[in-house]
Amino acid sequence: MADKQIAVIMGSSSDKDIMNKCLEYLDYFNVSYETKILSAHRNPDDLDAYIKNIESKGTEVIIAGAGMAAALPGVIASKVCIPVIGVPLDSSPLSGVDALYSIVQMPPGIPVATVAIGSAGAKNAAILAVEILALQDNKLRNKLIDFRKNGSKIKK
Amino acid sequence: MADKQIAVIMGSSSDKDIMNKCLEYLDYFNVSYETKILSAHRNPDDLDAYIKNIESKGTEVIIAGAGMAAALPGVIASKVCIPVIGVPLDSSPLSGVDALYSIVQMPPGIPVATVAIGSAGAKNAAILAVEILALQDNKLRNKLIDFRKNGSKIKK
Amino acid sequence: MADKQIAVIMGSSSDKDIMNKCLEYLDYFNVSYETKILSAHRNPDDLDAYIKNIESKGTEVIIAGAGMAAALPGVIASKVCIPVIGVPLDSSPLSGVDALYSIVQMPPGIPVATVAIGSAGAKNAAILAVEILALQDNKLRNKLIDFRKNGSKIKK
Amino acid sequence: MADKQIAVIMGSSSDKDIMNKCLEYLDYFNVSYETKILSAHRNPDDLDAYIKNIESKGTEVIIAGAGMAAALPGVIASKVCIPVIGVPLDSSPLSGVDALYSIVQMPPGIPVATVAIGSAGAKNAAILAVEILALQDNKLRNKLIDFRKNGSKIKK
Amino acid sequence: MADKQIAVIMGSSSDKDIMNKCLEYLDYFNVSYETKILSAHRNPDDLDAYIKNIESKGTEVIIAGAGMAAALPGVIASKVCIPVIGVPLDSSPLSGVDALYSIVQMPPGIPVATVAIGSAGAKNAAILAVEILALQDNKLRNKLIDFRKNGSKIKK
Amino acid sequence: MADKQIAVIMGSSSDKDIMNKCLEYLDYFNVSYETKILSAHRNPDDLDAYIKNIESKGTEVIIAGAGMAAALPGVIASKVCIPVIGVPLDSSPLSGVDALYSIVQMPPGIPVATVAIGSAGAKNAAILAVEILALQDNKLRNKLIDFRKNGSKIKK
Amino acid sequence: MADKQIAVIMGSSSDKDIMNKCLEYLDYFNVSYETKILSAHRNPDDLDAYIKNIESKGTEVIIAGAGMAAALPGVIASKVCIPVIGVPLDSSPLSGVDALYSIVQMPPGIPVATVAIGSAGAKNAAILAVEILALQDNKLRNKLIDFRKNGSKIKK
Amino acid sequence: MADKQIAVIMGSSSDKDIMNKCLEYLDYFNVSYETKILSAHRNPDDLDAYIKNIESKGTEVIIAGAGMAAALPGVIASKVCIPVIGVPLDSSPLSGVDALYSIVQMPPGIPVATVAIGSAGAKNAAILAVEILALQDNKLRNKLIDFRKNGSKIKK
Repeated sequence: MADKQIAVIMGSSSDKDIMNKCLEYLDYFNVSYETKILSAHRNPDDLDAYIKNIESKGTEVIIAGAGMAAALPGVIASKVCIPVIGVPLDSSPLSGVDALYSIVQMPPGIPVATVAIGSAGAKNAAILAVEILALQDNKLRNKLIDFRKNGSKIKK
Repeated sequence: MADKQIAVIMGSSSDKDIMNKCLEYLDYFNVSYETKILSAHRNPDDLDAYIKNIESKGTEVIIAGAGMAAALPGVIASKVCIPVIGVPLDSSPLSGVDALYSIVQMPPGIPVATVAIGSAGAKNAAILAVEILALQDNKLRNKLIDFRKNGSKIKK
Repeated sequence: MADKQIAVIMGSSSDKDIMNKCLEYLDYFNVSYETKILSAHRNPDDLDAYIKNIESKGTEVIIAGAGMAAALPGVIASKVCIPVIGVPLDSSPLSGVDALYSIVQMPPGIPVATVAIGSAGAKNAAILAVEILALQDNKLRNKLIDFRKNGSKIKK
Repeated sequence: MADKQIAVIMGSSSDKDIMNKCLEYLDYFNVSYETKILSAHRNPDDLDAYIKNIESKGTEVIIAGAGMAAALPGVIASKVCIPVIGVPLDSSPLSGVDALYSIVQMPPGIPVATVAIGSAGAKNAAILAVEILALQDNKLRNKLIDFRKNGSKIKK
Repeated sequence: MADKQIAVIMGSSSDKDIMNKCLEYLDYFNVSYETKILSAHRNPDDLDAYIKNIESKGTEVIIAGAGMAAALPGVIASKVCIPVIGVPLDSSPLSGVDALYSIVQMPPGIPVATVAIGSAGAKNAAILAVEILALQDNKLRNKLIDFRKNGSKIKK
Repeated sequence: MADKQIAVIMGSSSDKDIMNKCLEYLDYFNVSYETKILSAHRNPDDLDAYIKNIESKGTEVIIAGAGMAAALPGVIASKVCIPVIGVPLDSSPLSGVDALYSIVQMPPGIPVATVAIGSAGAKNAAILAVEILALQDNKLRNKLIDFRKNGSKIKK
Repeated sequence: MADKQIAVIMGSSSDKDIMNKCLEYLDYFNVSYETKILSAHRNPDDLDAYIKNIESKGTEVIIAGAGMAAALPGVIASKVCIPVIGVPLDSSPLSGVDALYSIVQMPPGIPVATVAIGSAGAKNAAILAVEILALQDNKLRNKLIDFRKNGSKIKK
Repeated sequence: MADKQIAVIMGSSSDKDIMNKCLEYLDYFNVSYETKILSAHRNPDDLDAYIKNIESKGTEVIIAGAGMAAALPGVIASKVCIPVIGVPLDSSPLSGVDALYSIVQMPPGIPVATVAIGSAGAKNAAILAVEILALQDNKLRNKLIDFRKNGSKIKK
């Protein structure tokens, strides 16, 4: 299967520095991914077009990072049936509480798996995605067990 | 012109009681409107379909009320060029702060005109819509001036 | 008509840097405006005098940016019938939450169209004003449609 | 002197129940007062008219109670040179934090003497006013000393 | 396979009413589960014993609901490699913000997939678990697609 | 009368920089004051001793600035009958909200006249004290009227 | 030794219902205690007098519960060298956050051992006091070990 | 007795700078301690192993500092009967409020003695531990009395 297991979407190019920490962890676990910069608010049609075929391409988990009124993870979750992980980013004077509430407080019916604000969340989004993929991949599971045994950190 | 000047959209049928206060004020000012219950998260395709033609039908202002991770006003705003007024509703343990941040903290490029949490906001959304419409409608403008002179309240 | 379509009022000269982002967007859309620095608290009489004739001069939208106990947008809104857009500024240790609550939580009867805290809000205030003016100005409306198509950003 | 020493102004008739606790304390201390219901936002002209002559009539302290975007105390303070005491009221889903920030976070130049949210604040506004008046009134001062000795409570 | 796919753990018997909404959704999707009441703080040894064998028994997802200093989901996550979903419960004067922060703000290395506070979160935890299981179960996936088509609600 | 009209007390020597803004304003209005650094928590006996005679010495207003669990203004208020003005300082990671709540939320019976967090509050504490003293001092009152006419700012 | 090991002080008679939960736990562990209702703000002299001799009487731990600007635990801590446990009470519209910050954010030098807001905190204050006393009392320590083994709950 | 009276545990090596302030105060009072870096989430087995024998070794008080979803103090408290002091650290965009709530809001049955966020708390944790130990150690008690007399500060 040539296609990517994970899609990492961020709302703005200014989110790259933090979301790169997510990619470092995905690289460490050697899972395939592609990244996109698409704002739910500024690029709604491009986002719709991108999401439309994401499941049929074989993507199994989506990671979406956004700040402020962070609609991105929820909008994606409303249009797919695969798990969506949301990373609230600290990109306004409200320290990411705005993004946290906008992501975690999803109404009944459409969950987003929310992780911590900022870089801790970016890293944990990757690990959570790996935990989900490892349910069907013993090699990945063993890698995860090793990671845990070694203090749940990667050496840069 | 047979079509409605204002569309009032709410995210859930449980938002009706509060959003009815908006309708009372629109009735008072005698502006035409239609209402829809459409969740940005649970009914994204119906919402898209409804919004798609809303401008060509002649709608000039959209009022959207939603609670929790209230993506509704922002998602609408991302797809129209007419003003969108957002009413944050108090429908979770967070007293509407979640909805407020999800609506007001829109990223640069796509504004939502946000009013107060709950019933005060529902009423003010109507008045703000009237202020916008009155810019091109002297009769409405005079009605608004009278309303202000009488203490900015309507008698039920 | 020689007069300005929009008035941009800020509460303090220290608000200029942020509110200039609003002016950049107004310039981009080529709408006419004038700016004033007038505090609701320190210059109440000058503010009253300035607001008194603002509607008869032809101004159609007022944008008011203020920090802390940001009474400016609400005080203006209490004295005009045209739409008032409020920009909460982050100018105290409370990160602009004080200004946000002081602006958005208007009591029933007198709305202020509130946008995001800080520079995102300053930009969006301009765009919201343009959306309102575009309801009666097809050329401006086309410019807004183009802006949206190009990712809702301006190139500096 | 026939005129009232204190003016107690509240923003809405719904504030009466809480502000009556203020009046009970003023009655206990036997200071003269008059009360007004005037919204800074809905009745700005009536408020201006009322405040205009308040100092020349001999009023020495103003107590203003308001909820939500509670501009009332600050707007009054911007137009008088006598002390203004602000009582934040809990009349929105935000539990009075909106009113507290709108009252206490006054910009440099125009203070409002802020007391606690709700009934505790309504009572303390009265006592603070009495403390101020007692600086020039030994009889009142002795009454205050007695009140303190008796546990700072009044018997109903 | 006789064993349960999902374990639903709650910190206190007082959490049952809310967490039952989770079970209703799991029943709707016909996935197998077992429930436990085990406090991370009051029953740490029983919790450890229960978690120790949970992966070898075939459990694939753990849902943990807790209020206040809600350590339960994180403590479980620290000891397993399968996904852990955390439901913050509103069981203190802090409206569940205490539980939300205690669950979502996990340090890098050990994620908890956090959902909304209270009953919305309880329901969404079930749906998120189903999304994860559906990655390897086409029948479940079809059921999920139907659920989405029908407005993401279950009829009681 | 040789004695000082105002006492300015701060809880820690690290509060000096901010509280000096208060002194600048007192100097501008030419009212007499003395300053003390006394912590309610670390120097309770020295504080008690200092406050004990403060009223008999002729002090008419006390200004107290403190950060964190800012008990200082309330402890002073509990022991005097003259007005106490509290300045919440931003000296912990909580941005002064801890100090604000510790000062403004006084229980019924013992008010503290609270002003804004940080330097705005330090300045306004001085002006509020002047407003109180000016009730009995026409020269000071005229100075205050001039200050207001000049935009409520002092030139440094 | 006839004297009480623990003193339980509350700021207001309205705190009794919650603080009684503390007494139930102290009774369960059979430690001796006395209770007082003394406000740091309304009864400062009585509080000083009571605290003055508390250590020489043999009291080893003080538990203080208070709401709003809860200065009580800190004021006591400033005058004794034995451990002071503070219970923040939820007795204002701020849900006890005001009391929590007023108690936990003590400046360096004078600690207060803070427990949870409201009834959970009242119970835990008792258990924490027992943990401290048990360091020198093996019988009490064994009782505590039994309590823990039985799920850290008492049967009423 | 060769063993340490106090154990100081921190969740991450990045907590060292702040927690060193705790050690400075313990050194000043000349009480014996040992330090460990052990995360409740990343090193749960090592933490369990370390805590298991801590009471039998003679440790009398545990100080635990952690940031974010700071489970460390509560997890320790759930497994020992000696007092546990928790220091919330400011190591996320939420300024330590996440850690504060995660530590102080312990459910009934298992208290953590919580102190202030950050360096003030680190220092006060040491002093609180000393207050507890001084109940059985007159020499230490005298040292504490001297510390208080000298303004509750240590000279570096």
